[in-house]
Amino acid sequence: MSVLVVSPGRDPEAWVEALKNEHPGMNIYVYPEDHDKEEVEYAITWKHPRGIFKNYPNLKVIASMGAGVDHITSDPDIPENIKITRVVDEQLTEDMSAFVLALVMDKMRNISHHYNQKSWEPQNYRSIDSTKIGIMGLGVLGNGVADTLKKVGFDVHGWSKSVKNLEGINTYCGDDELSEFLCNSEILICLLPLTPETENILNKELFEKLPKGAYVINVARGEHLVEQDLLEMIDCEQLSGASLDVFRKEPLPQEHPFWGHSKINITPHIASVTNPKKVVPQMAENYERMTEEEELINVVERDKGY
Amino acid sequence: MSVLVVSPGRDPEAWVEALKNEHPGMNIYVYPEDHDKEEVEYAITWKHPRGIFKNYPNLKVIASMGAGVDHITSDPDIPENIKITRVVDEQLTEDMSAFVLALVMDKMRNISHHYNQKSWEPQNYRSIDSTKIGIMGLGVLGNGVADTLKKVGFDVHGWSKSVKNLEGINTYCGDDELSEFLCNSEILICLLPLTPETENILNKELFEKLPKGAYVINVARGEHLVEQDLLEMIDCEQLSGASLDVFRKEPLPQEHPFWGHSKINITPHIASVTNPKKVVPQMAENYERMTEEEELINVVERDKGY
Repeated sequence: MSVLVVSPGRDPEAWVEALKNEHPGMNIYVYPEDHDKEEVEYAITWKHPRGIFKNYPNLKVIASMGAGVDHITSDPDIPENIKITRVVDEQLTEDMSAFVLALVMDKMRNISHHYNQKSWEPQNYRSIDSTKIGIMGLGVLGNGVADTLKKVGFDVHGWSKSVKNLEGINTYCGDDELSEFLCNSEILICLLPLTPETENILNKELFEKLPKGAYVINVARGEHLVEQDLLEMIDCEQLSGASLDVFRKEPLPQEHPFWGHSKINITPHIASVTNPKKVVPQMAENYERMTEEEELINVVERDKGY
Repeated sequence: MSVLVVSPGRDPEAWVEALKNEHPGMNIYVYPEDHDKEEVEYAITWKHPRGIFKNYPNLKVIASMGAGVDHITSDPDIPENIKITRVVDEQLTEDMSAFVLALVMDKMRNISHHYNQKSWEPQNYRSIDSTKIGIMGLGVLGNGVADTLKKVGFDVHGWSKSVKNLEGINTYCGDDELSEFLCNSEILICLLPLTPETENILNKELFEKLPKGAYVINVARGEHLVEQDLLEMIDCEQLSGASLDVFRKEPLPQEHPFWGHSKINITPHIASVTNPKKVVPQMAENYERMTEEEELINVVERDKGY
């Protein structure tokens, strides 16, 4: 019985080291080094080459190295019986909350604008308690972000697919309540999982339902955003701008029109990054649970995609 | 009995209008328009020309248009019997807290750096709960800022002249505990009142007691900071940088070395700006209290200077 680490998108070394610390006897292969495919029952992965997992006849579990699993679920060649798990980590939630808070406060007080302009031109700004924030996606990360923004005093609204009750947050659910949610989103923050339903959800039709001059923050996945629609909506001043941490292609290509756009602020996918040492214990636990045929933790519902 | 508005540093119009709304019968002069000096018992001011108030024989109260009163107390020609009042306003405290939070979060996540650099270079960053913030000055504003940063999860330390007990904040008091406070200030925020004792307090000797690589935020008064010492301490990397909202001369002169310095971030004195409509009621109340010979509110202790 072996574990396969497949991470062309991330350096595997820290993961292998952390796994060996946690489980000294574990037999670990790093893809694509030579290994016996029949031996592998457990894979730990980030952005694996499409289709490879169908060649592992005894594979039982694929563990994502991050909170997102769209890089796994989007591969149609993963057999139905394989369980997919994700990382749930308090530090990830804290990091995301801190990062979004930093983006929101920058927008609220024009900090980066002032730092950058090198001239003495005070601007007026709005108070926190009269600013409406809309958060799309109320999973672990969305919930954490909502909580942080609420503590600071924002008027927080949240939208999700299923009904959620969160203290101090106005929640909206499903397609029926999306328009009402959008009316209350002067700063819209996307924290949705990427699924076929949410792909391209940040589009012209949605942006038009936001209050005029709304600001968009995407810290989920590049595929949520229709890039051309964002540019058009900024051009016609329906949107005042956007902060984007994620892109369809990363690193964002140098020739991309987002670079250098005066109303689009770019960060290089840094909102929250998994620390292998902190999350390998939950992977080791699932490895043992798998061995003992016990129920796994942090399992993804494959039909939902998150 | 008349009120004199003296505000060469601010447009008086909004103040006069708000005063007249509050108190329709009030007789108001705007300095330097022609007026009878003997009539004036109450002055509302921001950065008055030095020495003018000694020519008002019946002046009883000088009200600052802002939270700071150093522009009044630093004038040696103000007779001892005149009461000085300041503005205490929740909105000022909220604005200051939001502004400092924005500066701190920018530093924590390098937001403005990323926005500005137009390249894909992720950087590591620290967690909020392991970052020590030191706040100098625990008056209304310092207290508000401490509270906001504590809510977000920072490890907050505060220093003041007199003993303060604030829930969840490590407090230090007076000269004896200053060094210990500084050891615990990885991000140092100055919110002190400007007095002869605090002038030039942000100097080389103080900076050397901070942890190596500390960051300085000054949102109090330009006169707190010895500018040359800041530049030297950044050059030798004792300090990693500074965010400054206040300066000895404002607007900051174009030829000043702070402009364009890669580790000094400048904002044009925007942390919190008094809204005349919100604070004129407390001035009108003091006007009535003065008339009725009742005790005033928000009186400054002239020997302390705040």
